[in-house]
Amino acid sequence: MNLILLDAAELNEGEVVLKDKRAGHLIKVLKVAPGDNVRVGVLDGAIGEGTVRSVGDDTVVLCCAFEPGVAGPPPVDLLLALPRPKVLRRLWAQLAALGVGRIAITNAERVERNYFDTHVLTPACYRPLLIEGLQQARDTRLPIVSVHKQFRVLVEDHLDAIFPDGLRLVAHPGRQAPLTTTLRRRSDGRVVLAVGPEGGWNEFELTLLEAHRFVPVDMGPRTLRTDTACIALLTLVHDALRI
Amino acid sequence: MNLILLDAAELNEGEVVLKDKRAGHLIKVLKVAPGDNVRVGVLDGAIGEGTVRSVGDDTVVLCCAFEPGVAGPPPVDLLLALPRPKVLRRLWAQLAALGVGRIAITNAERVERNYFDTHVLTPACYRPLLIEGLQQARDTRLPIVSVHKQFRVLVEDHLDAIFPDGLRLVAHPGRQAPLTTTLRRRSDGRVVLAVGPEGGWNEFELTLLEAHRFVPVDMGPRTLRTDTACIALLTLVHDALRI
Repeated sequence: MNLILLDAAELNEGEVVLKDKRAGHLIKVLKVAPGDNVRVGVLDGAIGEGTVRSVGDDTVVLCCAFEPGVAGPPPVDLLLALPRPKVLRRLWAQLAALGVGRIAITNAERVERNYFDTHVLTPACYRPLLIEGLQQARDTRLPIVSVHKQFRVLVEDHLDAIFPDGLRLVAHPGRQAPLTTTLRRRSDGRVVLAVGPEGGWNEFELTLLEAHRFVPVDMGPRTLRTDTACIALLTLVHDALRI
Repeated sequence: MNLILLDAAELNEGEVVLKDKRAGHLIKVLKVAPGDNVRVGVLDGAIGEGTVRSVGDDTVVLCCAFEPGVAGPPPVDLLLALPRPKVLRRLWAQLAALGVGRIAITNAERVERNYFDTHVLTPACYRPLLIEGLQQARDTRLPIVSVHKQFRVLVEDHLDAIFPDGLRLVAHPGRQAPLTTTLRRRSDGRVVLAVGPEGGWNEFELTLLEAHRFVPVDMGPRTLRTDTACIALLTLVHDALRI
């Protein structure tokens, strides 16, 4: 936990009383004492410093001062064919830590239908995991998650509203241009990255994505598991956007 | 499983009788029939094609022909402070899939001592996981694993034997040059990447690594968990070496 994230509603004239995991972390891991400073942030808001006012058995009171301005969301969005629930569960925190503005989870031919019944797709499950990732990476911007059971309806009817601008990329092994080369030629703006299921997008899905401005890119000769591929691709896009 | 990996000892004049998970995969997932071809490889050896000779209830017989030549090991090595056993267990297959020549697991101040007792450090545990990763990525080169309980002895006495040449990099947030910039200036050859524990290397460890030609590099402002950082860093190094 490299940042203590707060809900704006928890703050009362800059003061917050922590009683949950965050208090436990401050007491047991950071071993804070009154007067100590810790990094704090407001969900979807500013970053700042919290000064420890008091420490109880399982309570910490912080007095917070925030820096002016709020960073925008990370410049990368993800269109992700629903992976196995166990894999997705592990991915949420990592995606938030790497930095993603929006995560649109979609169906695809090679996605098992019953995956959509998983509780891993409920905010009650993924929100705490996303927050865990943000606290790891010192970010405050919570990724916006949406779930789409119909791939074609998503691409034809909703895509332009969810991802209005930016470069659209679809990862597909063996296709044309290396990801990094394509990114170096980009205009400015956001990047949307489409990552298929284990086994890949089928031809129909790939054709539909290409018809909607997705450029196929390749990451090299090695075929990776969905979760490894997601992390690798997001890393390359962030790196290219930073330079 | 994008490649069926065989031990050289399993081959008898190009023929192999499979009875384990690999047979199960061929029968249940790929649903092979006699005459079908599948990608095969020999551990640390050549890649080729296997023609299905016969399919039983839980047995598949393949007749294999291999391409001439054997690819060298991946051009990247990893010096990794031992992560939590649960995390390392998940990492093995991903490391092999991304491509690593050697994996030297080391102690560090911020590594819990009892982590070294884990069965996750035994070949019986990690070998099948590494092979799983190779079969995913269609590679035959098994990473060479070594375990070092004394960081200082490793760096001062064994490092030059384990990693004799190449560029040495140590990932450390907030330090000097971005990884990608450093890699673009490199001479040819291998890259060794040192990844610290959660909480990072301490000052002594970092100084010792720098005294042994490790260049500190940075991956951007976000602090990542060890496993996410490993995947991200290996991805960036591979990408830079490919271009």
